[in-house]
Amino acid sequence: MTEAAGLAPRVLAGDLQAAARLMRALDDGLPGAVEALRAIYPHTGQAFVLGVTGTPGAGKSTLVDALVTRLRAAGQKVGVVAVDPSSPFTGGAILGDRIRMQRHALDPGVFIRSLATRGHLGGLSRSTGDAVNVLDAAGFQVVIVETVGVGQDEVDVVRLADTTVVVSVPGLGDDVQALKHGILEIADVLVVNKGDREGADRTVRDLRAMLGLRTSGPQDLEIILTVATRGEGVGELWQAIERHRQSQQATGAFARRRREQAEAQLRAVVVDRLRRRTDAELARLGGITALAEEVAARRRDPYSVAEEITAPAVK
Amino acid sequence: MTEAAGLAPRVLAGDLQAAARLMRALDDGLPGAVEALRAIYPHTGQAFVLGVTGTPGAGKSTLVDALVTRLRAAGQKVGVVAVDPSSPFTGGAILGDRIRMQRHALDPGVFIRSLATRGHLGGLSRSTGDAVNVLDAAGFQVVIVETVGVGQDEVDVVRLADTTVVVSVPGLGDDVQALKHGILEIADVLVVNKGDREGADRTVRDLRAMLGLRTSGPQDLEIILTVATRGEGVGELWQAIERHRQSQQATGAFARRRREQAEAQLRAVVVDRLRRRTDAELARLGGITALAEEVAARRRDPYSVAEEITAPAVK
Repeated sequence: MTEAAGLAPRVLAGDLQAAARLMRALDDGLPGAVEALRAIYPHTGQAFVLGVTGTPGAGKSTLVDALVTRLRAAGQKVGVVAVDPSSPFTGGAILGDRIRMQRHALDPGVFIRSLATRGHLGGLSRSTGDAVNVLDAAGFQVVIVETVGVGQDEVDVVRLADTTVVVSVPGLGDDVQALKHGILEIADVLVVNKGDREGADRTVRDLRAMLGLRTSGPQDLEIILTVATRGEGVGELWQAIERHRQSQQATGAFARRRREQAEAQLRAVVVDRLRRRTDAELARLGGITALAEEVAARRRDPYSVAEEITAPAVK
Repeated sequence: MTEAAGLAPRVLAGDLQAAARLMRALDDGLPGAVEALRAIYPHTGQAFVLGVTGTPGAGKSTLVDALVTRLRAAGQKVGVVAVDPSSPFTGGAILGDRIRMQRHALDPGVFIRSLATRGHLGGLSRSTGDAVNVLDAAGFQVVIVETVGVGQDEVDVVRLADTTVVVSVPGLGDDVQALKHGILEIADVLVVNKGDREGADRTVRDLRAMLGLRTSGPQDLEIILTVATRGEGVGELWQAIERHRQSQQATGAFARRRREQAEAQLRAVVVDRLRRRTDAELARLGGITALAEEVAARRRDPYSVAEEITAPAVK
């Protein structure tokens, strides 16, 4: 048993250092890491997973911070998986743990894991799902997954949540409005943050109108006004989240959603494996650079090269 | 030869209807479509590919519109591949061709293709790359790829460009600032649009400061002020783009970049093929729903199921 594999019992005992090491080992693809994840998996599914997403600039981090404070006051252990916009070259998260939610830094009942949107080739969903499972197994009762709600990967990540909060803000342009429209379809509870700003009422009306155009899900979602920087409306928000969670459980929608989550995670793990395998096959064929050179010179086309790379995988 | 395969000679003759049909056939995975793409591929690589990206609300579409007008006045045929934020459920582009650049609607020297960010599972890059190749083969001298510069897929798409313009705007919040920081690393030319707004000078200074932190590429990029709605600064922008293109060609950076583009496209095609194959394998194993049910109930774990799904592909 490799070192990483030995982390499972410690994670299950709530050892945060072991949890952090296992997450890193998973992202680095270390031997034994998946073995540890398998060992903890039967103990997962206990945590309530809350997704928080929304347009850039809406104050999501501050709102998540306020939710964490509230949940801590109620004695709940809270994990946060924050998917940060990141540098495409360094792969590092730009906001990073360091500047996020510093006031919870010394609280062992809060665990914050930042994931960069880059450097997770096909694996952002997998990486997020793994982190949620590790926190769940380590005994966190609530796990908050926070993402910038733009882009396919970011939306996919939110599919791992039991309840999804979409955060808006007054006074954004048409372009952002269109984005908002896109993520509205995955919303269970809506928030208008910076609710003391001019135009907040209009934003609520606009959202209400947009909800009327939803093609799936209920159109009568709760819309909560918050001022996250002052903690205003955060209690009301949590109550709305609780109501959504309870109505889901009452109707059986919760179980259906959990199956969808399992499906999303399964897909993420499969795609991640295939990507790794492709890299190995590329290396075997002399590396992608040499092949790309042939393609760039138009001596070969990418479609037939791709066929060659993936051919051995055909049954 | 299927119908789609027969489109290649018509595309090469500049038949726009055939080009549109081929793009649709590729996205629908129709038989013969890839065959047609292979046939046209040796004739591609002629067009100059310009990437335009930036924060939501920066006025990218208007700027692209203004660039198209300018290029048309110079007698150039211009293709536009616009990656629009889209509904996660319907998969449709929200902005859509209809409301985009209507004033070029009757001009046969302009071809606009909108792609939704959703509904291209692992295939947004592939789909964009295919569209660029078709437009290139159909004789468009400039192909503009426009994306919302947030999210991994969107950034990957811009890797298909010879020159990338990153569009900013005065007066956005910190969160957006962080995003901007992320896409700054792929910039070749910077634009501050809505340059008549208060704070435009400060935005230029901020960008200059951020550029100093770039870990790769030159730090002395040109920063152009534009007011796209009035066409102001668009001439200067095009000159800056031309200067970048020429300096690339003079230094050999152009060829390196073309190889990187080929690499990005090759990867995209491979991943797309693997995704399709996975779906087929999942269907063979009784569909993902049944497997997800087992995982959701914690009777199985996603990692061992993924191993089973991908096992036949192991050499």
